[in-house]
Amino acid sequence: MQRAAALVRRGCCPGPLGPWRRCRSSAAAEAPAVLQVRPERSRRERILTLESMNPQVKAVEYAVRGPIVLKAGEIELELQRGIKKPFTEVIRANIGDAQAMGQQPITFLRQVMALCTYPNLLDSPSFPEDAKKRARRILQACGGNSLGSYSASQGVNCIREDVAAYITRRDGGVPADPDNIYLTTGASDGITTILKILVSGGGKSRTGVLIPIPQYPLYSAVISELGAVQVNYYLDEENCWALDVQELRRAVREAKEHCDPKVLCIINPGTPQSRKCIEDVIHFAWEEKLFLLADEVYQDNVYSADCRFHSFKKVLSELGPEYSSNVELASFHSTSKGYMGECGYRGGYMEVINLHPEIKGQLVKLLSVRLCPPVSGQAAMDIVVNPPRPGEESFEQFIREKESVLSNLAEKAKLTEDLFNQVPGIRCNPLQGAMYAFPRIFLPPRAVEAAQAHNMAPDMFYCMKLLEETGICVVPGSGFGQREGTYHFRMTILPPVEKLKTVLQRVKDFHIQFLGEFA
Amino acid sequence: MQRAAALVRRGCCPGPLGPWRRCRSSAAAEAPAVLQVRPERSRRERILTLESMNPQVKAVEYAVRGPIVLKAGEIELELQRGIKKPFTEVIRANIGDAQAMGQQPITFLRQVMALCTYPNLLDSPSFPEDAKKRARRILQACGGNSLGSYSASQGVNCIREDVAAYITRRDGGVPADPDNIYLTTGASDGITTILKILVSGGGKSRTGVLIPIPQYPLYSAVISELGAVQVNYYLDEENCWALDVQELRRAVREAKEHCDPKVLCIINPGTPQSRKCIEDVIHFAWEEKLFLLADEVYQDNVYSADCRFHSFKKVLSELGPEYSSNVELASFHSTSKGYMGECGYRGGYMEVINLHPEIKGQLVKLLSVRLCPPVSGQAAMDIVVNPPRPGEESFEQFIREKESVLSNLAEKAKLTEDLFNQVPGIRCNPLQGAMYAFPRIFLPPRAVEAAQAHNMAPDMFYCMKLLEETGICVVPGSGFGQREGTYHFRMTILPPVEKLKTVLQRVKDFHIQFLGEFA
Repeated sequence: MQRAAALVRRGCCPGPLGPWRRCRSSAAAEAPAVLQVRPERSRRERILTLESMNPQVKAVEYAVRGPIVLKAGEIELELQRGIKKPFTEVIRANIGDAQAMGQQPITFLRQVMALCTYPNLLDSPSFPEDAKKRARRILQACGGNSLGSYSASQGVNCIREDVAAYITRRDGGVPADPDNIYLTTGASDGITTILKILVSGGGKSRTGVLIPIPQYPLYSAVISELGAVQVNYYLDEENCWALDVQELRRAVREAKEHCDPKVLCIINPGTPQSRKCIEDVIHFAWEEKLFLLADEVYQDNVYSADCRFHSFKKVLSELGPEYSSNVELASFHSTSKGYMGECGYRGGYMEVINLHPEIKGQLVKLLSVRLCPPVSGQAAMDIVVNPPRPGEESFEQFIREKESVLSNLAEKAKLTEDLFNQVPGIRCNPLQGAMYAFPRIFLPPRAVEAAQAHNMAPDMFYCMKLLEETGICVVPGSGFGQREGTYHFRMTILPPVEKLKTVLQRVKDFHIQFLGEFA
Repeated sequence: MQRAAALVRRGCCPGPLGPWRRCRSSAAAEAPAVLQVRPERSRRERILTLESMNPQVKAVEYAVRGPIVLKAGEIELELQRGIKKPFTEVIRANIGDAQAMGQQPITFLRQVMALCTYPNLLDSPSFPEDAKKRARRILQACGGNSLGSYSASQGVNCIREDVAAYITRRDGGVPADPDNIYLTTGASDGITTILKILVSGGGKSRTGVLIPIPQYPLYSAVISELGAVQVNYYLDEENCWALDVQELRRAVREAKEHCDPKVLCIINPGTPQSRKCIEDVIHFAWEEKLFLLADEVYQDNVYSADCRFHSFKKVLSELGPEYSSNVELASFHSTSKGYMGECGYRGGYMEVINLHPEIKGQLVKLLSVRLCPPVSGQAAMDIVVNPPRPGEESFEQFIREKESVLSNLAEKAKLTEDLFNQVPGIRCNPLQGAMYAFPRIFLPPRAVEAAQAHNMAPDMFYCMKLLEETGICVVPGSGFGQREGTYHFRMTILPPVEKLKTVLQRVKDFHIQFLGEFA
């Protein structure tokens, strides 16, 4: 223990995950002589340290599973060990994982997946015929008729065809070409792959990537990893987080001083962008020579009666050939959100429009290094795009389950918005889509000072206190970006209604107390 | 069509994957005037082109699914369209995908996976109790008791515990710590992640990564993507592809002239390295401050009676504390190989030894950006490390299936080695492990000249001819690396025995004819 104490004094400290190791060779002088081995071999600095590691990786942050979530995990362990707290459970409202919060999977989807996994079940009377038909179609397209074979790197052919057919139907007949469809390991994988291909140049020619603030922190993380330049454009909080092309213009103009802005990322929804706005964005992207990334994973999560989902592809196709044949666009979808909530399967696809054929070849080449996305996730995606149809045996149950999930989410969206807006010092925009509230919190100056004294962002200080006093884990707005001097947090709307009400009440109580404490 | 012809003359050509698009704005001059739109908007160079893309990605090659495999796909389409060829099917002997070649999945594994996928089946009398027990254990450890939730980024806790227990048993009691286990999306994902963290520096300080020649082209591809420096060390063909530490020494010495060699990758098996060799490698890595990557995905595929699998971890643990507490090692395993062949599930893990705790924190942070590996793949990995035990209901069938697969592979390994060695101009080392033959082919000088006239590597020329004349798709040795002036190809031993015999006979016939043609 003496050596331990000495090392602690030198600043070596336990890591977040487990027992620490000796980390400084300066400790060598204290080492007792060890026979047969030169002393400097006994204690030597690691090859891989914070100093020697990839600096681009070091700069990466991902707030959705960042420090506050690690803290939530520690608190859970304390609860398990019987340590008394003002609450009995940690509520993880940090991450868009519906099934973790009790949402049930869609029965038909899991039936088809089970049939694909263990084809003996094709002889079982317990499975409906339409599920068996889907499973056979998938299996016949797999090597060795098995989910266990690698697929083509672009994904199983018939699944890409099904995705293209889905997009065509969704967009009212605007044709999608299966050749432009790439199945991916969740949408994150597709987004990362496209960004990887796009980023080039150095110095002032380094690729700039425009991302919305608030963003989804995959974007900033990948930009960091790739050493690209993050260019923020601010969504308009006063206007339901709408996108304003003037703000895009401002961002690009300033960015050109120090980088080569080449990519424009839109999350649609987040806020379901209006059709006019999407048209303006496409025009702007064309003018400014920006490659468009449309993250549309929440396309099934639109709650507000005033809003609809408009796909970038569809709007682009209706702008006339000079745009529809030229604007380069990649759109992304996933099995993780919507009414499916199949996060763990890592299913996703991207549709690419107007990519140079040689680039498509490069894309497949890059994807081939990782062989293929998980075939089980591809199968899940197939059912998402090819669900039971009217007249089919499983249709009624499917529609019932789907509508139940979506109406439940819509109810919770409204509940959350209303309750937050009743709290003095909290202001919450209508939740028109996706799965999160991003309320603004007005923090008293004394709270901001206290945060700074703790060397924490004020909203992190707030969220940590919320976690420690109520067990509710949300993510501070600083993890997503926000206008200077404003504070927010992101909370999911996913817990079951009754639990959500409790959560919202506790947040309210906490907030009022917080205001009092730092008045 | 006039415009098309003009563009073709300019050098725009069909891409490998689909219809080409207009690719040069110089075509603008020929454009008929289009109302309402300025001409330069009608045809404009793409934002994303071979010139503007990420040069590191452009440099990436992955031979296992490279040009010859694309050609094989084209030929398959031609066969489907009824075009007559000297053969009726393409045999894809390029990739280590056992189930695609007819190998059956392990029944118990798929039963557990089906139970996890569709838990209603837990009430079915058609599933054995031991499978249900495994499934319940996995589901209880998942959020919402569902494979559809994200897991912790490091992987489901109890699966990591099971992996640690497996490693401990495998290594005769040398303890593995679950905290050092990271579940990954296939081994490729773990290898990529570790390399990503390791690579740093610039110019002559750029990280050098030692890889064996012949290699598995994931390594060269990732090194290329990361802009690291590939440092080749040659395995000894005259000595069954053994690793020679003198050759490592040579490689490191020369590498230091132009980079900072920091990482040593070993594929074990490939050739199952002897225990003495592994000790020497570890000593060498310690001396030269090299981070060890041990790719052990074929640890269940050792056929030769003279060889055994020795894990790097076990050997390291027996070298005494100055090594076992200090040498930094990452070992990798996968569900894709062995007797399981579950490639499509993308299951894998890595065990890290002696990593700085702060680095482990960085690792989790980096993994968190992609949220988690596919939970279905994690479940598959769990069954691999936690199979039926003696006395359990499913044990007999499991052992029967496992031994059937492995003895079948061993039979095919011997068959392949023997048959290739009967062919004049082919010399094949004993296949001691893994799933591939890498025979040396002695090409007549006229064949080498013909290849050069076609602007192809001689072994690519040979393999293309083989594919076109027999339908057999193998990968030229140049895709894996080989000593200058030698030629090889890599062929899997995975087709069923009778088909494999036919394949080998056809390769023999082709080779003899080839020698005659270019005598």
